Amino acid sequence: MEALKQAIEREGVGIGSEIVKVDGFLNHRIDVRLMERIGKAFFEAYRGEQIDCILTVEASGIAAALTTAQAFGGIPVIFAKKGDRRNVGPEAYAAQVYSFTHQRMNTIHVSRPWLPKGSRVLIIDDFLANGEAVEGLISIVHQAECELVGVGICVEKGFQPGGQRLRERGVRVVSLAIVEAIEDGKIILKEDE
Amino acid sequence: MEALKQAIEREGVGIGSEIVKVDGFLNHRIDVRLMERIGKAFFEAYRGEQIDCILTVEASGIAAALTTAQAFGGIPVIFAKKGDRRNVGPEAYAAQVYSFTHQRMNTIHVSRPWLPKGSRVLIIDDFLANGEAVEGLISIVHQAECELVGVGICVEKGFQPGGQRLRERGVRVVSLAIVEAIEDGKIILKEDE
Repeated sequence: MEALKQAIEREGVGIGSEIVKVDGFLNHRIDVRLMERIGKAFFEAYRGEQIDCILTVEASGIAAALTTAQAFGGIPVIFAKKGDRRNVGPEAYAAQVYSFTHQRMNTIHVSRPWLPKGSRVLIIDDFLANGEAVEGLISIVHQAECELVGVGICVEKGFQPGGQRLRERGVRVVSLAIVEAIEDGKIILKEDE
Repeated sequence: MEALKQAIEREGVGIGSEIVKVDGFLNHRIDVRLMERIGKAFFEAYRGEQIDCILTVEASGIAAALTTAQAFGGIPVIFAKKGDRRNVGPEAYAAQVYSFTHQRMNTIHVSRPWLPKGSRVLIIDDFLANGEAVEGLISIVHQAECELVGVGICVEKGFQPGGQRLRERGVRVVSLAIVEAIEDGKIILKEDE
């Protein structure tokens, strides 16, 4: 997606060989207009599919999930909650997710009533690296006996294995920008095929 | 705000004397159309004011912050991050916030570049109870030498002291629904004046 790639090239910062810092427009400060275009891009990629709800995980997936839901006409967004929550309640689907950012295991939860059996679910997240968060969300989709339509990712780190693993298992993954490498602080994006 | 009050009366659940559970439409599953109306209601309340950006705290403030920013024509949203973050960087404003949900102190952070000095800031959050999160955000606004225009809250717990404390200090607080009490699981809302 051209506007997102331009924002990454203009404002993104590569740190070391692995960190892609895009917190000026994507996941700390949000460029609202860009986020709306991101939502429309996921709608374009999945238009024609029946989608009943968007599933993401707090916190930085919420904005893209919301604009995607808007592009689909205002379908519900469910965001999985992290940690042991007093306010999730005992009736929750859960999955273990390793966070590389925080270097610890998190449990993510979704209250059962919000994912009715048979729902067709689109997973949206801001980043895909090793794929831990998306794998946890897919596990919750399966626990709920819902159908996974696909995954939409704003920025995929193509040099980490999450995207490849999902695609090899037949999961449809749409990434709006794929980082091939970080070289001397510069973020090298994959060109469109 | 009538649509939000109706949703609370129809779907909200009161637990004990303090917990207002609205996770079916506000802070776990998001009713996207209702959230857009919430954004428009904050815009109506603060229209005429110059607002440069919306400030909230992850995670459940993000959706209302985003739709409010949309109602203001697509101004940026900044969401404060919780915890010690590898990816916030050393150059951050920080405040200590006690979380009643998790019964622990959290540090919240905002990277300095995303709150330029002199910005006129509207704080948005989903809940106001003891006011800890909003007080932390106000502290960050002051650290950044920004101007606080006001606070917009989806659901205020009127029986807890956060809202009163803020108003006594002269902070403008707009709450779209105020819970007066929880009686036998029923949420009693304050009537419009």
